[in-house]
Amino acid sequence: MTTLPGEPVSQQRSDRVEFRTEPSRYRHWRLTFDGSVATLVMDVDDQGGLVPGYELKLNSYDLGVDIELYDAVQRLRFEHPGVRTVVLTSGKEKIFCAGANIRMLAASTHAWKVNFCKFTNETRNGIEDATANSGQTYVAALNGTASGGGYELALACEHIMLVDDRSSAVSLPELPLLGVLPGTGGLTRVSDKRHVRRDLADYFSTRAEGLGGKKAVAWRLVDEVVPRTAWDGTVKERAATFAERSARPAGASGIELTPLAKTRTDDHIGYRHVGAVLDHERSAVEITVLGPEGDAPADVREQGTDFWPLAVARELDDLILDLRTNETGLGTWVLRTKGDPARVLAHDALLLKDPGDWLANEIVHYLKRTLKRLDVTSRSLIALIEPGGCFAGSLLELALAADRSFQLDGVFEDIDPDADPATITIGAMNLGPLPMGNGLTRTATRFFGDAEALAGAEAVEGEPLEAADAERLGLVTFAPDDIDWYEEVRIAVEERAGFSPDALTGLEANYRFAGPETLETKIFGRLTAWQNWIFNRPNASGPEGALRRYGTGRRAEFDKKRV
Amino acid sequence: MTTLPGEPVSQQRSDRVEFRTEPSRYRHWRLTFDGSVATLVMDVDDQGGLVPGYELKLNSYDLGVDIELYDAVQRLRFEHPGVRTVVLTSGKEKIFCAGANIRMLAASTHAWKVNFCKFTNETRNGIEDATANSGQTYVAALNGTASGGGYELALACEHIMLVDDRSSAVSLPELPLLGVLPGTGGLTRVSDKRHVRRDLADYFSTRAEGLGGKKAVAWRLVDEVVPRTAWDGTVKERAATFAERSARPAGASGIELTPLAKTRTDDHIGYRHVGAVLDHERSAVEITVLGPEGDAPADVREQGTDFWPLAVARELDDLILDLRTNETGLGTWVLRTKGDPARVLAHDALLLKDPGDWLANEIVHYLKRTLKRLDVTSRSLIALIEPGGCFAGSLLELALAADRSFQLDGVFEDIDPDADPATITIGAMNLGPLPMGNGLTRTATRFFGDAEALAGAEAVEGEPLEAADAERLGLVTFAPDDIDWYEEVRIAVEERAGFSPDALTGLEANYRFAGPETLETKIFGRLTAWQNWIFNRPNASGPEGALRRYGTGRRAEFDKKRV
Repeated sequence: MTTLPGEPVSQQRSDRVEFRTEPSRYRHWRLTFDGSVATLVMDVDDQGGLVPGYELKLNSYDLGVDIELYDAVQRLRFEHPGVRTVVLTSGKEKIFCAGANIRMLAASTHAWKVNFCKFTNETRNGIEDATANSGQTYVAALNGTASGGGYELALACEHIMLVDDRSSAVSLPELPLLGVLPGTGGLTRVSDKRHVRRDLADYFSTRAEGLGGKKAVAWRLVDEVVPRTAWDGTVKERAATFAERSARPAGASGIELTPLAKTRTDDHIGYRHVGAVLDHERSAVEITVLGPEGDAPADVREQGTDFWPLAVARELDDLILDLRTNETGLGTWVLRTKGDPARVLAHDALLLKDPGDWLANEIVHYLKRTLKRLDVTSRSLIALIEPGGCFAGSLLELALAADRSFQLDGVFEDIDPDADPATITIGAMNLGPLPMGNGLTRTATRFFGDAEALAGAEAVEGEPLEAADAERLGLVTFAPDDIDWYEEVRIAVEERAGFSPDALTGLEANYRFAGPETLETKIFGRLTAWQNWIFNRPNASGPEGALRRYGTGRRAEFDKKRV
Repeated sequence: MTTLPGEPVSQQRSDRVEFRTEPSRYRHWRLTFDGSVATLVMDVDDQGGLVPGYELKLNSYDLGVDIELYDAVQRLRFEHPGVRTVVLTSGKEKIFCAGANIRMLAASTHAWKVNFCKFTNETRNGIEDATANSGQTYVAALNGTASGGGYELALACEHIMLVDDRSSAVSLPELPLLGVLPGTGGLTRVSDKRHVRRDLADYFSTRAEGLGGKKAVAWRLVDEVVPRTAWDGTVKERAATFAERSARPAGASGIELTPLAKTRTDDHIGYRHVGAVLDHERSAVEITVLGPEGDAPADVREQGTDFWPLAVARELDDLILDLRTNETGLGTWVLRTKGDPARVLAHDALLLKDPGDWLANEIVHYLKRTLKRLDVTSRSLIALIEPGGCFAGSLLELALAADRSFQLDGVFEDIDPDADPATITIGAMNLGPLPMGNGLTRTATRFFGDAEALAGAEAVEGEPLEAADAERLGLVTFAPDDIDWYEEVRIAVEERAGFSPDALTGLEANYRFAGPETLETKIFGRLTAWQNWIFNRPNASGPEGALRRYGTGRRAEFDKKRV
């Protein structure tokens, strides 16, 4: 067990996973353009695994492959406004994608597997988000077999085409071959998105070789099968059809996502607007987000990637991914802001001013996705609202995403008695544009089932609220004065570090998602959680489990008790 | 590890858990009546544990205590139609209920813990079902502290009263003390039923001592606190108020749930209408349900508990509970019926004839609850529709609940060439009265997202459908003829036994619940599944885990990595 992919990350501090990349550095994907159609070709370098110990054969993927996919999906939205259809296909013969690499999974720690699944799920949700909200429709052009995670990647696309050559198929062989579930939303998308009948879905998911041809269409597993002779033409045709339907603007120029500046040591992660102090002793991270340094510009594109909302979204996104993957032992994230609330609200207003502005739209959706990452992060989130902070509008979402928030009642008498008291301000961003995965705003989720309280919060839009008012309105958890502040906050953080990390993960995931369930919350709630359990069971991960025995020529041995 | 409660059950065959009981045999509960108000007093005999090895102190409970509670809730509905309010209270001083017994949990196998949680969840859902559908409103009269499962029991009640004596509180101490989650719907009911704000809920669930007094009311954890001096009078008053609102009929006489006749050996379980052959070699159970022996009576009460729908519901209910608890190694249940479909439909029609008939209503809801048990059972369900069967109306639900169904196309030529071909018949029972936990009928769940197919099924109500038609309409999975039948069925059953039991549990639970989520599906999906994972982690169940260390005076040691 010395070659676990999870291990090097947490032990050799020079070997952290890095999420920042760009097309010129891709090892596994090619991105080409033809008018309004982009083609994203998966062509995995089998020697290009993120950590040693496995070969990425048959277009199988690991976290490194998916990091590039995520980057491509992001860049398509920001850098290529002219793209209206994205064709996802394979650069290999006869195989589209064999899914997550099994040797990588078998050798990984439990925590690594779960975190890997979370990220790949978020990337596939991002593909659907681009299709739904950016007029960039993803078409899966399966020019060979798509199995497991390969088929799940196709399921995230709007339209699935499969080559009809008597051998190519789609399949979910995880259960029969590996004793685990498809880990990237496959089951939920099969039933709730593609409406495959439950008994057919059951049969399909136990049949390692999967299904192809007309039956795959009849069962709704794919949208069409196309003979190899007509393949290229039909793919082109479909891509054109989807492109025509898009409301994406014509002739707009993109905004280049220039390299994100970052400093990183064992104890600190720094960006221009976001900083994090890694407190290994208290198992916590102190995160501070700075508000805008200046007034809002006249236009969202004037400052490029320096535009504050875009810069903050990119920095937070990278920070969340870095901490989640590289710092699993830091169980509590303490969130602070610093700056002028009015400037935050002015930037928010600029983003919401023109609903037809594609770039403003992209930035808002990016912020939305970044906050959603926070919601599904298995860390305790505590927001501290202090004088000099700017928890307003988009940044108030950080406090609303937190498991608990503390707002100082008054000021720190011994430090800065003349400071303005800490405030929070509800803005337009808190009342619609940044929904959670459950389809509700964080405000509406907070007051789920309590229409009066929700109306009360809506009624104070734009008013800076001091602690007593914010507490009365239910917008913060506690409002201690400066005499109690340090002690209360210290206890909250220390206490958290003393609890079972697993139970905290379960508790927080329960309470963060009150109210309705959606495809997305089902994917995270059902699949990730159930898979967490299955991954951890000896039948999968024990020495005789299916995941460990796969490819050894020896059958797995199961404890047959049903649980 | 020789005193695991789970072990004796599966090893000493004489020591099976028995779910049949009656008030005269209760060791832990007292049921008294005062007009339209019943009082159900929890007074656990601390020496009365179901298996040796622990004492049930402080009104803590194990499966045996909950079996009696389930029996009482059932009998109240059938035997006591005059009861309109059920007051749930404690016979101990200063303590309402301390929840599930920790020593029992700590010493139990993983499978036992999960199955125990499932049953207790079903019983609490049953309390809510009685409140919602039978005009029997449950009032929790907490005359002392209700912690953990004790508070969760209160959460299943419509109204929660807590004595205000400066020491009594409600609490969910599972996370801080035991490193697990509340296992009986507590988190979901706190957020989605009582609408406690998520950050307050988080605080409450990490505070071992809980909350009482006015703050518990302000946070919505209880509905009212009452001084001890005014306690008896106020409880009486509330009970009377809820009784007044009930639409329960006046002057009706109940139907006694006479002892259920059952034969049980290692290889067979037999009731009057339901039989099960335990095939240990194939890890399967062959279940056959017999249709009515005669025509439907003129009235639902004429035959007492011999009335076929009630008898079948009771027998199936007991069988499911017996198999789930005592036969965890039998992973596949094969479901057959035998009898006259017309008689099944006639009995169904009688049940649905008069919507105001309280007893008919009770029987339908009982059948509904029994079928829901099947939906959340962690066994593969395969329905076999053969000549001579009666998969019609209420019994067709068994096939619709199954993961797969096979309907013979034609007859068995070599056995009975002159038989009528196998049929299924959609009846009124398939189109409304027996919803699943997701709020949809099994038919609507089956065709979720496919309105045309659903309309197609509705259009053939009352028509016996042979295999080809049933398959075309999507009502059965496969329709082999007698040449292929044995081989296909054999492979389906054998294959199932070869798969990972854990992965099957996850797969089936996913596909059985397409579409919307409800309080109930959240409870089973989120809590049970997440708890499955947490229960299995070393942080809870390892030698240094919180569950094992509880009460030893030694702190749990956690692997602090967040997953």
